[in-house]
Amino acid sequence: MNPDDLHLLRQALPYINRFKGKTFVVKIGGEIADDEATLHSFCEEVALLAQVGIRIVVVHGGGKQATELSEQLGIEPKMVQGRRVTDEQTLDVVMMVFAGKINTEILSALREMGVDAVGISGVDGGIVNAVKRPPKKVLNEKTGKEELVDYGHVGDIDSIDTRLLTTLLAADFVPVMASLGGDDDGNVLNINADTVASEIASALRAEKLILVTDVEGILREDKSLISRTTPREVDALVKAGVIRGGMIPKAQSAVEALKDGVQTVHIISGKKSSTLLGEVFTDTGSGTMLHRDATG
Amino acid sequence: MNPDDLHLLRQALPYINRFKGKTFVVKIGGEIADDEATLHSFCEEVALLAQVGIRIVVVHGGGKQATELSEQLGIEPKMVQGRRVTDEQTLDVVMMVFAGKINTEILSALREMGVDAVGISGVDGGIVNAVKRPPKKVLNEKTGKEELVDYGHVGDIDSIDTRLLTTLLAADFVPVMASLGGDDDGNVLNINADTVASEIASALRAEKLILVTDVEGILREDKSLISRTTPREVDALVKAGVIRGGMIPKAQSAVEALKDGVQTVHIISGKKSSTLLGEVFTDTGSGTMLHRDATG
Amino acid sequence: MNPDDLHLLRQALPYINRFKGKTFVVKIGGEIADDEATLHSFCEEVALLAQVGIRIVVVHGGGKQATELSEQLGIEPKMVQGRRVTDEQTLDVVMMVFAGKINTEILSALREMGVDAVGISGVDGGIVNAVKRPPKKVLNEKTGKEELVDYGHVGDIDSIDTRLLTTLLAADFVPVMASLGGDDDGNVLNINADTVASEIASALRAEKLILVTDVEGILREDKSLISRTTPREVDALVKAGVIRGGMIPKAQSAVEALKDGVQTVHIISGKKSSTLLGEVFTDTGSGTMLHRDATG
Amino acid sequence: MNPDDLHLLRQALPYINRFKGKTFVVKIGGEIADDEATLHSFCEEVALLAQVGIRIVVVHGGGKQATELSEQLGIEPKMVQGRRVTDEQTLDVVMMVFAGKINTEILSALREMGVDAVGISGVDGGIVNAVKRPPKKVLNEKTGKEELVDYGHVGDIDSIDTRLLTTLLAADFVPVMASLGGDDDGNVLNINADTVASEIASALRAEKLILVTDVEGILREDKSLISRTTPREVDALVKAGVIRGGMIPKAQSAVEALKDGVQTVHIISGKKSSTLLGEVFTDTGSGTMLHRDATG
Amino acid sequence: MNPDDLHLLRQALPYINRFKGKTFVVKIGGEIADDEATLHSFCEEVALLAQVGIRIVVVHGGGKQATELSEQLGIEPKMVQGRRVTDEQTLDVVMMVFAGKINTEILSALREMGVDAVGISGVDGGIVNAVKRPPKKVLNEKTGKEELVDYGHVGDIDSIDTRLLTTLLAADFVPVMASLGGDDDGNVLNINADTVASEIASALRAEKLILVTDVEGILREDKSLISRTTPREVDALVKAGVIRGGMIPKAQSAVEALKDGVQTVHIISGKKSSTLLGEVFTDTGSGTMLHRDATG
Amino acid sequence: MNPDDLHLLRQALPYINRFKGKTFVVKIGGEIADDEATLHSFCEEVALLAQVGIRIVVVHGGGKQATELSEQLGIEPKMVQGRRVTDEQTLDVVMMVFAGKINTEILSALREMGVDAVGISGVDGGIVNAVKRPPKKVLNEKTGKEELVDYGHVGDIDSIDTRLLTTLLAADFVPVMASLGGDDDGNVLNINADTVASEIASALRAEKLILVTDVEGILREDKSLISRTTPREVDALVKAGVIRGGMIPKAQSAVEALKDGVQTVHIISGKKSSTLLGEVFTDTGSGTMLHRDATG
Repeated sequence: MNPDDLHLLRQALPYINRFKGKTFVVKIGGEIADDEATLHSFCEEVALLAQVGIRIVVVHGGGKQATELSEQLGIEPKMVQGRRVTDEQTLDVVMMVFAGKINTEILSALREMGVDAVGISGVDGGIVNAVKRPPKKVLNEKTGKEELVDYGHVGDIDSIDTRLLTTLLAADFVPVMASLGGDDDGNVLNINADTVASEIASALRAEKLILVTDVEGILREDKSLISRTTPREVDALVKAGVIRGGMIPKAQSAVEALKDGVQTVHIISGKKSSTLLGEVFTDTGSGTMLHRDATG
Repeated sequence: MNPDDLHLLRQALPYINRFKGKTFVVKIGGEIADDEATLHSFCEEVALLAQVGIRIVVVHGGGKQATELSEQLGIEPKMVQGRRVTDEQTLDVVMMVFAGKINTEILSALREMGVDAVGISGVDGGIVNAVKRPPKKVLNEKTGKEELVDYGHVGDIDSIDTRLLTTLLAADFVPVMASLGGDDDGNVLNINADTVASEIASALRAEKLILVTDVEGILREDKSLISRTTPREVDALVKAGVIRGGMIPKAQSAVEALKDGVQTVHIISGKKSSTLLGEVFTDTGSGTMLHRDATG
Repeated sequence: MNPDDLHLLRQALPYINRFKGKTFVVKIGGEIADDEATLHSFCEEVALLAQVGIRIVVVHGGGKQATELSEQLGIEPKMVQGRRVTDEQTLDVVMMVFAGKINTEILSALREMGVDAVGISGVDGGIVNAVKRPPKKVLNEKTGKEELVDYGHVGDIDSIDTRLLTTLLAADFVPVMASLGGDDDGNVLNINADTVASEIASALRAEKLILVTDVEGILREDKSLISRTTPREVDALVKAGVIRGGMIPKAQSAVEALKDGVQTVHIISGKKSSTLLGEVFTDTGSGTMLHRDATG
Repeated sequence: MNPDDLHLLRQALPYINRFKGKTFVVKIGGEIADDEATLHSFCEEVALLAQVGIRIVVVHGGGKQATELSEQLGIEPKMVQGRRVTDEQTLDVVMMVFAGKINTEILSALREMGVDAVGISGVDGGIVNAVKRPPKKVLNEKTGKEELVDYGHVGDIDSIDTRLLTTLLAADFVPVMASLGGDDDGNVLNINADTVASEIASALRAEKLILVTDVEGILREDKSLISRTTPREVDALVKAGVIRGGMIPKAQSAVEALKDGVQTVHIISGKKSSTLLGEVFTDTGSGTMLHRDATG
Repeated sequence: MNPDDLHLLRQALPYINRFKGKTFVVKIGGEIADDEATLHSFCEEVALLAQVGIRIVVVHGGGKQATELSEQLGIEPKMVQGRRVTDEQTLDVVMMVFAGKINTEILSALREMGVDAVGISGVDGGIVNAVKRPPKKVLNEKTGKEELVDYGHVGDIDSIDTRLLTTLLAADFVPVMASLGGDDDGNVLNINADTVASEIASALRAEKLILVTDVEGILREDKSLISRTTPREVDALVKAGVIRGGMIPKAQSAVEALKDGVQTVHIISGKKSSTLLGEVFTDTGSGTMLHRDATG
Repeated sequence: MNPDDLHLLRQALPYINRFKGKTFVVKIGGEIADDEATLHSFCEEVALLAQVGIRIVVVHGGGKQATELSEQLGIEPKMVQGRRVTDEQTLDVVMMVFAGKINTEILSALREMGVDAVGISGVDGGIVNAVKRPPKKVLNEKTGKEELVDYGHVGDIDSIDTRLLTTLLAADFVPVMASLGGDDDGNVLNINADTVASEIASALRAEKLILVTDVEGILREDKSLISRTTPREVDALVKAGVIRGGMIPKAQSAVEALKDGVQTVHIISGKKSSTLLGEVFTDTGSGTMLHRDATG
């Protein structure tokens, strides 16, 4: 470091004191792994948090890369209401992209930063116990008719077994987890990464669930950032149509996690540098922080 | 079980007594995962060994499936002296097939058998510390000329760090390991699975290294099976041309492992059922067992 | 093993998965130790269960051999309502036969099977805290008159201290326990072995209490075997006179154990081979299994 | 205690400081258990040593009681050169008396003193690994001819496995051990108790081996007690015929133990009260202490 | 020891059995450290208790020596209602005398007795979390007027963090603790030693809180000693004026500790030898023992 | 923190990776505790190092304050060759100032920074085993004659027992240690703080020994700072008279520590802010770093 900047280190001390030994679950989209500089920068921030004594679990999906590989292989990706319909071939794609390519890329980037990371998915150690999602009637927006959609190898989480995670965290490894799950009959299931992250955070009684997205956080109608909010306000914002589209399930995952014991949930941008550090080491934060409503 | 068969269980007792608490490293080719019935049968055998108290590490590659995916993606696989030249695109294929598809399939099959397995590769927890293989002059058999071949992202093992493996084994997880390695600069390297298995077995001071192949074992010239042999005999058999082709590096890995402290090395067939159990639970075994030469 | 029989091993897997790490308390009569082949066979079965990860506690008495030694020493054995009146001399006989001869014979037979067994009685480590049974008015069937019977050094269990048992089980030893108890004044007391086994099973929250007897199990009036039953049915069977004689206290011990948290109680024959394995490794079992009544 | 005697307690402090956490192996003859007051007094001394933090292992035989029971059963005891010829029937007697009666009596007396004792023999946990003593030519003193004597089930120690002892000591139990051993074929063997104690003390790297006998210690020709001596002096005393008879093997066991790492060996009387405490808590001791010769 | 006194040791056995592994908090006044023979004698008693397995925490103040040093430095000690008004200079005196001189003297005396003692104060490891006592209106007895007294750096206990104490006790160290406390702003506060001892005893769920004073115990009006009493009787004695002066806060600390789970509280004299041993090792004790009122 | 400065945090990562889990022994003069701002700044730096996973032991003396208190008490301080002659009264002063005042002030300042610090001296837990320095003939510079000087309670280190230090470090406490030692006869001895720090660093196999002084480091004749040096160069500098006065013993302590296994020794200034951080987190460092001579 530059000797003139050493005094800045000291400003980190109160934050380190506050969060040392606590667990953070950080969910990233697969697109972070797509750009080497962004991945490098993100891993540097994770490494710094891990090294000052914060226990980190990284959860990732990889939708964009899965779509790309599907197209390369001549499989037409089919999305229904934001959920990938996962036939046999697509499941192979998802396993290869999530648990193979992206997971290994994150691991090797973390290793470069001196972090002992371990790549897993919800299939490992029976962490994510899931059930196949039953076929569902869905309105086909093109035809205007309801259709029965079989999502294929898509799963919903039934329960979480934290034994492998706690074994790894206790031995100072950083688990990096692809959003797959399994059942006891040997099926692999594709599961929404936000949901996996939220359930893992709840099961580990995490201090923070941090959702790294491609927006700055929850925005007001005038596009200004909401720094802090609560479930009650989120509810109002959804009703008012301010929170909409893909932000709705994220906000709901966040509210669920708060209910199940996570202390705060953060929605930050993965596109800008140091947002993860900013959310942890500054009082204002860099994105939106959700905390419980005051009771009473 | 059928009550009439119960007495057979007892015959397993002396073998259990002998191997309980010992470590076996089992290397399989990726092709086992290609056939569901074979994978199911193999995992059942692994599960049984694990449940009677043997500590199992599974190591696998996946060359056949990597070639298939390469072809699907229009990448021409290029092999030089049995080693896959691994350019950037091929490395992606290898990561996806080894660490993604095959690894997850083995995990889920083991989970079906009640085994808490954890999928890793040599990148995880810094297990396999490798260096990029330097370009090498190789005789081009077609042109008859020497060419300088750059194998690309192919690595040679520098050192093994067993901390993650021993953490997982101590917590009664079965590690399933894809044959990738890494270096401290964040590079991922494709490594020969036989070599990975042999080095892991040595580093763990394993009781047995079991190489599951597509042949019955080491055969004599008359195609009869050699049940037991030693490094000295192997040496003679290589010189006599009886051991040849792909069996040579396997036999050499086996001899290396014996030198480094592994008790016995076994070469068995993955095409027939119960060869793994047969090698452990019968005195004759099902394939070829290598043990050290008597000294003196 | 015979290679052709290896596939049978696999059938044991689901049972091993179910019972691994669970505790079974197995009570045998002393007469098993009287016949070398029977003892050898029983110990082989215990060894197999122990080696696949089931935690076994063996409890034994030794009434037959105690009677024999008493007679050799010219002490007339005196039984009142199935309970041995235990004067000073008879207590010596009981200690010698139970804790000396039979216990050591079982230990050495288990050691031959590769099991690290430890012979104890309820006096060791203060496991069985007992009180002397107070004299009781009993109808003398010969004279038709009530008599006050002092059972001598016969005890009733006051409490169980599991510390020694859990220390031994945690270190993978198999405790073999003679049915004696003690009090804090240094007295040794002769205690019914069924009762000791039932109380130990309850205190350890055992999965199974297995009573090895000289009959096949609980029989119907037509002598056919009842494979499964419940406390409510047992009650009815006792009232109907189908369960009678020595089976009544056994059935009552079984019902008590179920109440106190043991999952299932089994009554099997020690005269036939593989009944212990059959009860654990087959779905039909070999004797009678008692489980709780469905509630509702 | 009497308040006036409290100051005496303080005199124990330096001895406690010196021996806390150290291991003492105390060998007693079975005859101590024959007299209730003597047993009570001995157990009180053992309890006190155990409670101030000394790790105690008690080893006992029981020759006198074995002879009595043999006679009661009409078996003629046969001794050759001080060693009991142990046929099948006699082995039963030895198991019953050593592991049954005497062991349980010592346990219950210790329990009365608040000590958590555990009765074992060398068969338990495979502690004493012994081999049957081969038949030996022995001079028959009556006939003056050599005879081939088969000692029967008499064993010599091959090796000691301390795992059960260290498990029990670490959990603060006091092991009380009958001098039997076994082999891996399931045979029980009768072994000299002095030898067992000496070998156990060596294997545990004990601080003290204390042999409780029926004499005051090693005596000079004028019957005065030798308080301290060394292997070299013992050698001279044997040659001079001062040490003779049953004291010779005791002295030899003592010398062996010193060679194998035991710090001091003590020969004291079990007939007088407080000799055990006296040997530990006074500088002069109560019997004979053997320590290594000064080197040089 | 004198061999003739060995039998007396045995009388300690039942007391050792009763208190082994229990925690005693012993509070002494600083004046004990003022006289070398008294300190030596006290430390010998503490050492003996520690060595027989009782976990000891020593708490001390040092008012007398603080007054002396204040006077040497020309600072006029100012007491209001028995509490030292602690300005900046006086706080330095208190730190130097309590945590420096007296603490080190006790440590080195204990070390001489073979005890591994560790000197701490309530500032160490954040044990005593205190708040500055707010200024209070107090009647000036000289002027007859109420005055607002600022006690300065005097604290009241807010909470106790036992982590350091349990770490030290688990590693068999004897903590010796000066009666200082601190807050999270880095202030050091002077706290009444009786209160510290009472709160520490409660937080550790101690078996005994022993207050070593300069009187024999609680005395009746006729100066005879009350051997045993209860909170209810203490209440009556205070009301009746029998307990008065400095004994009132001591008696109140004792009653508080009983309420918070300490089993018994003892008030004994530090001026006579062996009172600590007498209170532990005799049935009558040497001072006054407070136990809870019988309920009902 | 200021969001704009967050990127600077990342520059600390490689240093954290390098030193995490390593032990640093930091020696400070007592004068640091004399100025509140300096103490505050120093403790902030220690806290930061501790929180990123470096194990810190602080060693301090307090000569300046000891001299002040001596003077206040009318004791004339007497120094011979830089060593305080320590009579009975002066020993009291040293205990009070070192272990009482300065130690407690450092503790409470660290506590304010969120550090769980524990104040000890070498008397605690028998860490520093010392012997009284024998009287020595010393040249009286005033009289020009040799005099026999008895240094009084001044000690030289005989051995270090690290058990208490490792217990505290393993439980994540920061030991703050006053430079006193003791012997087994209960004597307290005043010991040079540089020597204590050097010996503690050696015994703990510390990564770094950091001597905080009132100069910038070792200076060249032109007063420029020597950033890196080796024992061989130090030797030359002493001979050349460049290193002189109080720096000589410091340089010698440093050289000793390197010999005994400490990786690097640092001499830095306590008068400027961030020199401790600068020495750890920058490549140039802020003072002088001593490392071993290259061999060969």
